[in-house]
Amino acid sequence: MAAIKVYGSTFTTATRRVLATLYEKELEFEFIPVDMRAGEHKKEPFLSMNPFGLVPAFEDGDLKLFESRAISKYIAYKYADKGTQLTGGDCKKTPVISLWMEVEAHQFDPAASNLTWELAIKPLIGMETDSAAVEENEARLAKVLDVYESRLAQSKYMASDCFSLADLHHLPTIHYLIGTQSKKLFDSRPHVSAWVADITARPSWSKVLATQNKQ
Amino acid sequence: MAAIKVYGSTFTTATRRVLATLYEKELEFEFIPVDMRAGEHKKEPFLSMNPFGLVPAFEDGDLKLFESRAISKYIAYKYADKGTQLTGGDCKKTPVISLWMEVEAHQFDPAASNLTWELAIKPLIGMETDSAAVEENEARLAKVLDVYESRLAQSKYMASDCFSLADLHHLPTIHYLIGTQSKKLFDSRPHVSAWVADITARPSWSKVLATQNKQ
Ligand SMILES: N[C@@H](CCC(=O)N[C@@H](CS)C(=O)NCC(=O)O)C(=O)O
Ligand SMILES: N[C@@H](CCC(=O)N[C@@H](CS)C(=O)NCC(=O)O)C(=O)O
Repeated sequence: MAAIKVYGSTFTTATRRVLATLYEKELEFEFIPVDMRAGEHKKEPFLSMNPFGLVPAFEDGDLKLFESRAISKYIAYKYADKGTQLTGGDCKKTPVISLWMEVEAHQFDPAASNLTWELAIKPLIGMETDSAAVEENEARLAKVLDVYESRLAQSKYMASDCFSLADLHHLPTIHYLIGTQSKKLFDSRPHVSAWVADITARPSWSKVLATQNKQ
Repeated sequence: MAAIKVYGSTFTTATRRVLATLYEKELEFEFIPVDMRAGEHKKEPFLSMNPFGLVPAFEDGDLKLFESRAISKYIAYKYADKGTQLTGGDCKKTPVISLWMEVEAHQFDPAASNLTWELAIKPLIGMETDSAAVEENEARLAKVLDVYESRLAQSKYMASDCFSLADLHHLPTIHYLIGTQSKKLFDSRPHVSAWVADITARPSWSKVLATQNKQ
């Protein structure tokens, strides 16, 4: 039995963020699907793992965590010597990776998650897209991607010339968005578009997409 | 001349998050006010420090950062041996602090920042409060504070029995909110209320509030 356990649903962006990190690190783990349709994430025993009732939840031996980005950081630091280096080692790069992880969380994700919900998830579950929300969030995302375009003209990846968590954290929402009308926002910016092609082509990401919601 | 420079406005929550960290760490720094009324944050030279045009921006020698939580983490790790320990040292606590920092960023802050804007900032600048937004975000914040109430029944601070960045990051929005009608959400929860009293009474926080927007 693996010491690392991920409780989640493979359709969700937050679960996929953790799976991508584990595959980059080439770690063994057990995936335990949470039946969200049945509302398992809003009941015990799941609520004892994440009191907010959101997937994923995570265990590594005695350590219990939730919040996908806290989990990915833990994995990247704890298993620094396995698989892909995701954190930069020296004193100067770590803060820069941290900075671009914050940018993903506070500038990119609010718009990107909203668009994922409106354009990818709602149609899937038969809800109607709110076109005013789409317009507002596409405008917000476009501004963020203007900054990314300049940034990615200077370095191959967000924080440096090496792939890091600052890139990986974007993968789950970008994957959904390039299957929607918002794809144009990425395609129209050459450096952003090359970066998207590069990070979505990582073998770890194919493994995430191949992971099924069954045990 | 100090090596550490903070460019910002002392009224803003994000600038105060950085100042609180510097005071906890008892570090010397230079504060350079950014005249937001004059739109200095949307023009050069500020945009070269933060391409998103948001305060604060930060320098430590050659290292340039923005995003308040990336700055506070950098300071806490880089100056681990000065002032208050803000990161927990051992392998088990660091991920737990990281987890509660993510909770602040993804669960608490979206509601708290919106309420700060609607109830504290808008009245200050003569804009009208949107009461539907207040209702929605008070309901969201109440749910988050229910989780905090259980958490703080188990440990004195968010991540453990020691004050850490996971507590500090909450200070700027909590300070504004306890001056508004949303105070009731904190007051009605005994452990949350004791925690708020404790963290807002820290000497570092008084120093933040005494910092003026002049050089
Ligand atoms: N910031 C959290 C977000 C977790 C989250 O929102 N998970 C979604 C799926 S992506 C969920 O569980 N939604 C169910 C719900 O909202 O009830 C993280 O990164 O782990
Ligand atoms: N996530 C950023 C937020 C920065 C931010 O939003 N700063 C606000 C003040 S609290 C600002 O500069 N607002 C000006 C504007 O929106 O134009 C951080 O933590 O540094």
